[in-house]
Amino acid sequence: MKKFINHVDTLLDESLRGFAKAHSDLVELNSEPRFVRRRQLSQSTKVALISGGGAGHEPLHTGFVGKGMLDAACPGQIFTSPTPDQMLAAAQAVESGAGVLFIVKNYAGDVMNFEMAAEMLDCPTETVLVQDDISLPKEHEIGRRGVAGTLIVEKILGAAAEEGAGLAQLKSLGDRVADNTVTIGVALTGCTVPALGGPTFDLPPDKIEIGVGIHGEHGRDVVDFASATEIVKTLCVAIEKEINPTRGQKILLHVNGFGSTTLMELYLIFELAHEFWSKKGLDVQRSLVGNYTTALDMAGCSITLTLLDDELIRLWDAPVHTPALRWGC
Amino acid sequence: MKKFINHVDTLLDESLRGFAKAHSDLVELNSEPRFVRRRQLSQSTKVALISGGGAGHEPLHTGFVGKGMLDAACPGQIFTSPTPDQMLAAAQAVESGAGVLFIVKNYAGDVMNFEMAAEMLDCPTETVLVQDDISLPKEHEIGRRGVAGTLIVEKILGAAAEEGAGLAQLKSLGDRVADNTVTIGVALTGCTVPALGGPTFDLPPDKIEIGVGIHGEHGRDVVDFASATEIVKTLCVAIEKEINPTRGQKILLHVNGFGSTTLMELYLIFELAHEFWSKKGLDVQRSLVGNYTTALDMAGCSITLTLLDDELIRLWDAPVHTPALRWGC
Repeated sequence: MKKFINHVDTLLDESLRGFAKAHSDLVELNSEPRFVRRRQLSQSTKVALISGGGAGHEPLHTGFVGKGMLDAACPGQIFTSPTPDQMLAAAQAVESGAGVLFIVKNYAGDVMNFEMAAEMLDCPTETVLVQDDISLPKEHEIGRRGVAGTLIVEKILGAAAEEGAGLAQLKSLGDRVADNTVTIGVALTGCTVPALGGPTFDLPPDKIEIGVGIHGEHGRDVVDFASATEIVKTLCVAIEKEINPTRGQKILLHVNGFGSTTLMELYLIFELAHEFWSKKGLDVQRSLVGNYTTALDMAGCSITLTLLDDELIRLWDAPVHTPALRWGC
Repeated sequence: MKKFINHVDTLLDESLRGFAKAHSDLVELNSEPRFVRRRQLSQSTKVALISGGGAGHEPLHTGFVGKGMLDAACPGQIFTSPTPDQMLAAAQAVESGAGVLFIVKNYAGDVMNFEMAAEMLDCPTETVLVQDDISLPKEHEIGRRGVAGTLIVEKILGAAAEEGAGLAQLKSLGDRVADNTVTIGVALTGCTVPALGGPTFDLPPDKIEIGVGIHGEHGRDVVDFASATEIVKTLCVAIEKEINPTRGQKILLHVNGFGSTTLMELYLIFELAHEFWSKKGLDVQRSLVGNYTTALDMAGCSITLTLLDDELIRLWDAPVHTPALRWGC
């Protein structure tokens, strides 16, 4: 395994120290227990938004800590849930009297540990569960995975919290955004997990995997490699079957790279997906293209749609000032 | 070659169309000849800043078109110089009466074609040549290559142009920034050029290449793979020998990924480089970490230092609003 690394055990901490130095105007790192918090909290009392999960998906979540998005993020080791004490310490550091909202991707370990943290906290809490990955059926026993749509929930809730929305209002808004956000991904390759020293899975040179998760979890189908247009069609048709959208529906179209897919390819995917949805009569009102929810160095991408209304558009457009997402301020 | 692609010949245009759609608030695409321009030019007359070069380095240069940076960018095919008619048409589209400044990476084709465009234009022009890659000796017959430092020249000149600096002033400022910017890179792997269908070069599993160019040009040395600390030391010592900095010198430290290196690794490299320079008594005043000047899907990174003074810091901090770099507005 040829990666920039000193030791598997120190990679995350060394990297987080660099991250905190590079963005010292925005964030602060707490080492023990490990969390990243906004350097400067909002001056008025607001609900504290906290997310977290295994590392290896950068910039998610640490890159989204800052004004108009998260107040803190708790990174676990690579592809490993953070622990309740991280969440508890993060919450105690950024809670300002209006309660705490946890934004949690639907993985058993994450869900359990955030639940434990919520129980230990002596302030009001709510949790929004993100399960946007439609590659698994809705009835799947552990539910659907939270993937690239998570940042959309974080962005929109961040804006609403900044405006002073209360805990119950944020919980309801977050559930609405999560319910209206769907994602499906495709892998061209596996990803190299440092602790394994090699790829999580192998795909033959002529195969790709539809519906892969952001840890390399198996998806729906391993299919023949095909043209970009064919691949985009496969992904978009799966989304269409899921949401059955009506003509004129406003959408946010997010094309997310898994790590080693070039921007040139991601913009190509965006062009083709834009064409697909426009032909179906959907109105692509907002977009986001780039490597935001990665799976280490996996080659591949996902397509996310959020069904928008005027309120969600306004909150999406609201100022955000974080290491990885920044506009309007 | 497993890449998201329909056809090698259409990749660039399809991708640029997606790029222009995703950032339609900021940029406009001209298809024939091919260039990307700011949608809305500054209201007052200002020097037009134009750059360009072969595609495959995204977000450089198209991602840096917008307020406070470039007025237009001319992408050639992958790793291929754009043609003079692209530069001429771009200049005619964005020139507003104060002349045109070309920012050119030092490659023979780029230099020649920008020169031809300048000759054909009937307005005053200047050119700033960027040759920040110290892996070649200063006396090299075709000079040093322009690499990741280019965006720093573009950002600082963009801010100065926005403030109303004249052509001569920008030329002098640009030369000063270019002279004070040095870069050296390291490759862990080659990159996959779509037209070749495979990698530009191969590195054995236990070797890395120091001083590699952003098209996979051979560097100084192929050496044994080593720890991140050792690799950073090798790169920083090469920079130190070149610039021989004095204690207390303010610097901008830019760690740039070549495409498929994770943010986790890049922040680790930043942490180690920050430590190296801090121990030497340098003052890391500003930083930038991410995949900004890529070599398609190459794994690797470069370290860039710009020696700062108060004027350069002020111009670096000035508002910028482009697809890939955005702050202060």
